[in-house]
Amino acid sequence: MSTAYTPRPEDKFSFGLWTVGNRGRDPFGEAVREPLPPVDAVGLLAEVGAWGVNLHDNDLVPIDATPADRDRIVREFKAACERHGIVVPMATVSLFFDPVFRDGAFTANDPGVRSYALQKTMRAMDLGAELGAKIFVLWGGREGVETDACRRPDEAVKRLREAVNFLCEYSIDRKYGFRFALEAKPNEPRGDIYMATTGAYLGFIATLDHPDMVGVNPEVAHEQMAGLNFVHAVAQAWEAGKLFHIDLNDQVSGRYDQDFRFGSANIKTAFFLVKFLEDVGYDGPRHFDAHAYRTEDYAGVRDFARGCMRTYLILREKARQWNADSEIQAVLSETRDAPKFAPYSAKRRDELLQQPFDRASMARKGLAYERLDQLTIDLLLGVR
Amino acid sequence: MSTAYTPRPEDKFSFGLWTVGNRGRDPFGEAVREPLPPVDAVGLLAEVGAWGVNLHDNDLVPIDATPADRDRIVREFKAACERHGIVVPMATVSLFFDPVFRDGAFTANDPGVRSYALQKTMRAMDLGAELGAKIFVLWGGREGVETDACRRPDEAVKRLREAVNFLCEYSIDRKYGFRFALEAKPNEPRGDIYMATTGAYLGFIATLDHPDMVGVNPEVAHEQMAGLNFVHAVAQAWEAGKLFHIDLNDQVSGRYDQDFRFGSANIKTAFFLVKFLEDVGYDGPRHFDAHAYRTEDYAGVRDFARGCMRTYLILREKARQWNADSEIQAVLSETRDAPKFAPYSAKRRDELLQQPFDRASMARKGLAYERLDQLTIDLLLGVR
Amino acid sequence: MSTAYTPRPEDKFSFGLWTVGNRGRDPFGEAVREPLPPVDAVGLLAEVGAWGVNLHDNDLVPIDATPADRDRIVREFKAACERHGIVVPMATVSLFFDPVFRDGAFTANDPGVRSYALQKTMRAMDLGAELGAKIFVLWGGREGVETDACRRPDEAVKRLREAVNFLCEYSIDRKYGFRFALEAKPNEPRGDIYMATTGAYLGFIATLDHPDMVGVNPEVAHEQMAGLNFVHAVAQAWEAGKLFHIDLNDQVSGRYDQDFRFGSANIKTAFFLVKFLEDVGYDGPRHFDAHAYRTEDYAGVRDFARGCMRTYLILREKARQWNADSEIQAVLSETRDAPKFAPYSAKRRDELLQQPFDRASMARKGLAYERLDQLTIDLLLGVR
Amino acid sequence: MSTAYTPRPEDKFSFGLWTVGNRGRDPFGEAVREPLPPVDAVGLLAEVGAWGVNLHDNDLVPIDATPADRDRIVREFKAACERHGIVVPMATVSLFFDPVFRDGAFTANDPGVRSYALQKTMRAMDLGAELGAKIFVLWGGREGVETDACRRPDEAVKRLREAVNFLCEYSIDRKYGFRFALEAKPNEPRGDIYMATTGAYLGFIATLDHPDMVGVNPEVAHEQMAGLNFVHAVAQAWEAGKLFHIDLNDQVSGRYDQDFRFGSANIKTAFFLVKFLEDVGYDGPRHFDAHAYRTEDYAGVRDFARGCMRTYLILREKARQWNADSEIQAVLSETRDAPKFAPYSAKRRDELLQQPFDRASMARKGLAYERLDQLTIDLLLGVR
Repeated sequence: MSTAYTPRPEDKFSFGLWTVGNRGRDPFGEAVREPLPPVDAVGLLAEVGAWGVNLHDNDLVPIDATPADRDRIVREFKAACERHGIVVPMATVSLFFDPVFRDGAFTANDPGVRSYALQKTMRAMDLGAELGAKIFVLWGGREGVETDACRRPDEAVKRLREAVNFLCEYSIDRKYGFRFALEAKPNEPRGDIYMATTGAYLGFIATLDHPDMVGVNPEVAHEQMAGLNFVHAVAQAWEAGKLFHIDLNDQVSGRYDQDFRFGSANIKTAFFLVKFLEDVGYDGPRHFDAHAYRTEDYAGVRDFARGCMRTYLILREKARQWNADSEIQAVLSETRDAPKFAPYSAKRRDELLQQPFDRASMARKGLAYERLDQLTIDLLLGVR
Repeated sequence: MSTAYTPRPEDKFSFGLWTVGNRGRDPFGEAVREPLPPVDAVGLLAEVGAWGVNLHDNDLVPIDATPADRDRIVREFKAACERHGIVVPMATVSLFFDPVFRDGAFTANDPGVRSYALQKTMRAMDLGAELGAKIFVLWGGREGVETDACRRPDEAVKRLREAVNFLCEYSIDRKYGFRFALEAKPNEPRGDIYMATTGAYLGFIATLDHPDMVGVNPEVAHEQMAGLNFVHAVAQAWEAGKLFHIDLNDQVSGRYDQDFRFGSANIKTAFFLVKFLEDVGYDGPRHFDAHAYRTEDYAGVRDFARGCMRTYLILREKARQWNADSEIQAVLSETRDAPKFAPYSAKRRDELLQQPFDRASMARKGLAYERLDQLTIDLLLGVR
Repeated sequence: MSTAYTPRPEDKFSFGLWTVGNRGRDPFGEAVREPLPPVDAVGLLAEVGAWGVNLHDNDLVPIDATPADRDRIVREFKAACERHGIVVPMATVSLFFDPVFRDGAFTANDPGVRSYALQKTMRAMDLGAELGAKIFVLWGGREGVETDACRRPDEAVKRLREAVNFLCEYSIDRKYGFRFALEAKPNEPRGDIYMATTGAYLGFIATLDHPDMVGVNPEVAHEQMAGLNFVHAVAQAWEAGKLFHIDLNDQVSGRYDQDFRFGSANIKTAFFLVKFLEDVGYDGPRHFDAHAYRTEDYAGVRDFARGCMRTYLILREKARQWNADSEIQAVLSETRDAPKFAPYSAKRRDELLQQPFDRASMARKGLAYERLDQLTIDLLLGVR
Repeated sequence: MSTAYTPRPEDKFSFGLWTVGNRGRDPFGEAVREPLPPVDAVGLLAEVGAWGVNLHDNDLVPIDATPADRDRIVREFKAACERHGIVVPMATVSLFFDPVFRDGAFTANDPGVRSYALQKTMRAMDLGAELGAKIFVLWGGREGVETDACRRPDEAVKRLREAVNFLCEYSIDRKYGFRFALEAKPNEPRGDIYMATTGAYLGFIATLDHPDMVGVNPEVAHEQMAGLNFVHAVAQAWEAGKLFHIDLNDQVSGRYDQDFRFGSANIKTAFFLVKFLEDVGYDGPRHFDAHAYRTEDYAGVRDFARGCMRTYLILREKARQWNADSEIQAVLSETRDAPKFAPYSAKRRDELLQQPFDRASMARKGLAYERLDQLTIDLLLGVR
């Protein structure tokens, strides 16, 4: 077994500017780390071995920047990326930080806010395209409510659809070639956020004008906040051809958004996730949307970033070991046969209706899943 | 204001046989109520003022019944329904109670179990059709895992799709005219259940052979177990034309499936739900999938059933009052204007990109949602 | 039924400076309201009808204030309180906002931080005493971990005990007459906070040098974040003589700390809480530790504050109505007889061991709790 | 590193009769395994290497057994234990399964039920003493409510206290020498259970007549259902001298009671738990209160039981490795110095009040907890 878990460009590990640049501000406390200029963040990411950097428009360009400032900032950032061999696979837009979005962006009751949100997103798409990004993430962090008295929720869905449809047209119009990845979250910073789960977005996408251009960006923490099985959500998205991006981090269920280092809270879930992504051949970015504990200085931020990638690589090796383990595969092989019902026909129907079944005997057979799971635990703990 | 909250047939209140017939068995205790024969359940439902009764195949016909027994049972049940003026709007199938389904039904690893599940569902559809049901609910209570080692989750999605596609063909073939309503649940009785949320099923439906025949059956408790906003889930389903049925009950978040009396735990949520259903003109059954506390005898079961309907009717009246409340409407009217972005055009794009926005001024305006919500609370508490 | 729910001084409604002064900053967004100077907050509270104001040291006095500034600020604040007829029933200390506390205060690994935390608390006690407060709340918001690798949790308990013991001595020494009220929270801003529940603090208090001086300050949101029944926690504290203070607000379970307007999320829970406090004759402050939605300006902040008190008063009236409701009382009276087992004796033992019980008959009796609960719902909805 | 994780008697691994004997019945399904006679359960436990067996009264003796049957059953069971070298370290009483307890046992509104519960417990104590148990667990599974309308919660606390006091007297009277271990759970099978957390019981114990005789029996799943940090709860109990027993299993937060195989869901939590128990020298039973998945036959039940013990032993070895890891210890040593504040004196007070602190400099120091946690993850995954 290799002990070198060193990230390489082909692993496609990326971090948002806002992740290594997170300053540790929280609802009960002040920032604990000095600002990290974007150009320095790129350097840090190169140093720890990342492949890509992602950004919200305002992670790089202040919301009040003049056009000249904007252009200078972008130029210097591109130069830094080139110098360090870092790519920009994904871009997104902040529709949540500025007070103007306190009632939502695309779904806000104030039509002026909705228009502004659209304008801001178009400009963020311009920026992302200029930096070479091919994926554009939309996270509607403020699209929600504290009280459902303020808006009918079906109206919110309609407003959201109108905005996404418009942005698809804009991408086509400008020939940006973006694939949009919609990111769900159940709550925080709003009491409830519309489109609470990855599944909700999969349902929504089917109602769009250009469903082919739009997929999802599931985030570990966001499904796990609601106690949902993240691997199942990712699998459904993948199977539907909609896994356009993924946000890796970790989270204890039923809590505030923790954005912990990947694999640091739920080892087993992280394992099945990595195994799934590798088994199906997902070849998009492995994006870490997490941040260092508030106890850390920038040395700790580097430890954090290295740890995300290292744990991914350890688990990837374990996934290969699991697939090659003959005892594990033996348990599974007994249960894998998969006859097909389709296509439906009168003959198939009648065969099925008349087929005799020995229910009791089928129910008696032990499935050895306790053994299978313990073998998995042994493997995870490195004693197998 | 009317004080008579008496259910009428046009309210379309229905109960499952398993709800008023629930005997109070739980993981830590034995049944506390004597069995309630289905014919007597129909009588009880008529007595309390319900309109319809729903059933799983085995609520009515024991899994081991001979064809002759089955026919007699069905005949007597139909007679009871007619005698009491009770309809059967929805039927479903138990793919969870018998030990044969301990690893799932349509998604079980054993192909024999999958075949048997399909056969059993076809027969349950025959039964439902015979009783006049036009909605067929599928709840995959055992379609899940305790350990993800046992099955790749995308394989489970494929198996589920194959089964639903087959059953759609069967309905077409038999001219049953069923609309299928898929019911999500995040967990219990399995560690995790596939298709954890209503949203997940909305995404799944878009991938079926006959998406038009298939909708959802959201259940209050099932979304609230995961702490999700139920009204938002229902609104998304409705807006997509997929609200084929609904299961009303109540539940405290983050817990075992409680199936409490409708409106007994989360009054405010229940209010916004009733308001939504009434505002949009949902005209399907209002099905109560709940049961009486284990402390109750059958007098208490009647109290429980009456309470479900009564609370619905009280909240419906409050919804009308809310809509007619000029102070409430005044807060909302300030925020309701809805200019459309579509259709996209170069002109519209350029207008939007060049439109100036006074962010600070838009952000300063108080939205009066605290007042709006307090008015709602006042109205709910009957002091307005 | 009275329609005037106007707060009066004898209701003892208090708000923290940080509640009406909350500026709406959250992890994903900037402040939305201008700062509210403490003196103006006192005016606002007087205007809406509050009785008291509470504060952390740094709500009033900046952490960097010179002694002269400090004295001037305190003088002006006291004058404002007197002018507006507002009292300061409780004081507390911020051991969470400054970055120095990022690893805890009394439990931090750095002994210098622990010493500083003690010093800061002593000075906050000086301040509270000067303002006339008799209750001193300790909320250890940073006393926790993101990883249990950093500290043995029993060591944290010892450090916490040492600090509280020291502060009790200081109060005795200075003749401040403080009663300490310890406030539990399960998590946020730390991944896990030590002493996660009110119960944990009740256990802890029993191990202190001066248990009589120390009680608890349960907060609605903090127990409900973990999905716990808040009324049960309050009842246990009260019954043990330890309910020294209470923080009223509202919260949806399993989420970030929402601090919603009292009674706005869980109406039924709020009702049983008010009923309990009134039934037992709790005569301490009714402190609202909540804040206005981020959508509000200061008019909305007033609406928020008024709403907290109004809902309390509505529910208090309903509690009286509930107690006077003969149908409700009739259900309860059947079950209220309470023979005592104590004192233990050989005779009592033998009687009990030989007493025959008809288990089946005892189990058959319906308890009418569904009816009881529906009567409660009717009463809450104002249709009774 | 040893690869032999074979349980030995000195490891004190015990299982309840109800754990290996669990038949897989759940709210949505029938039992899947044949009954396992207690005598056979003892044989199974000996076969897999357990040291002890625990039981509720009715796990062994049916509730309707005649005295003669009872004596024969107990005799045969003792013989089986002796034959297999299995001890009975703990006994308990079922105050939850029979319908008579549907409204509680010690806290039921019906005084007859309360008396019966006491009698039943006294007899279960007789049984436990006869089998040699020295620990008596009390889990009040039905001591709770679905609606708080039915009983004032402080009344429930009083009733519970009276019962526990009485039972302490009975143990003294009979010279049984029992230590009582109270087991908390937040909910299920009741909507809410009184004494929801281990902390609540620690507070309760301080109010008893014989607090020295009474401690707690924390259960992993029960704290984790509410999303609480189990290790913190155990540490508080241990530090207070109250860790009389422990129930090991696993659980995903915010869900029904899963009772999974120890260490199968939350590896990291299980590690810190084992580390804590071993570090402090806990020498009581390691009781596994869990059961096999419903997919298993009795071969799978054996796999389950072996897996519980194996994972404990693997984690114990890792705990030793962690303690011996110089890099890990180096991070910790920087932060471990612990000057004492006590005893309080005027001198100590003044020193502390006058001590200067450089807040900014204390706040700047990185604590390397990300590195510490990643080292822990590496160690857990066996790559260190």
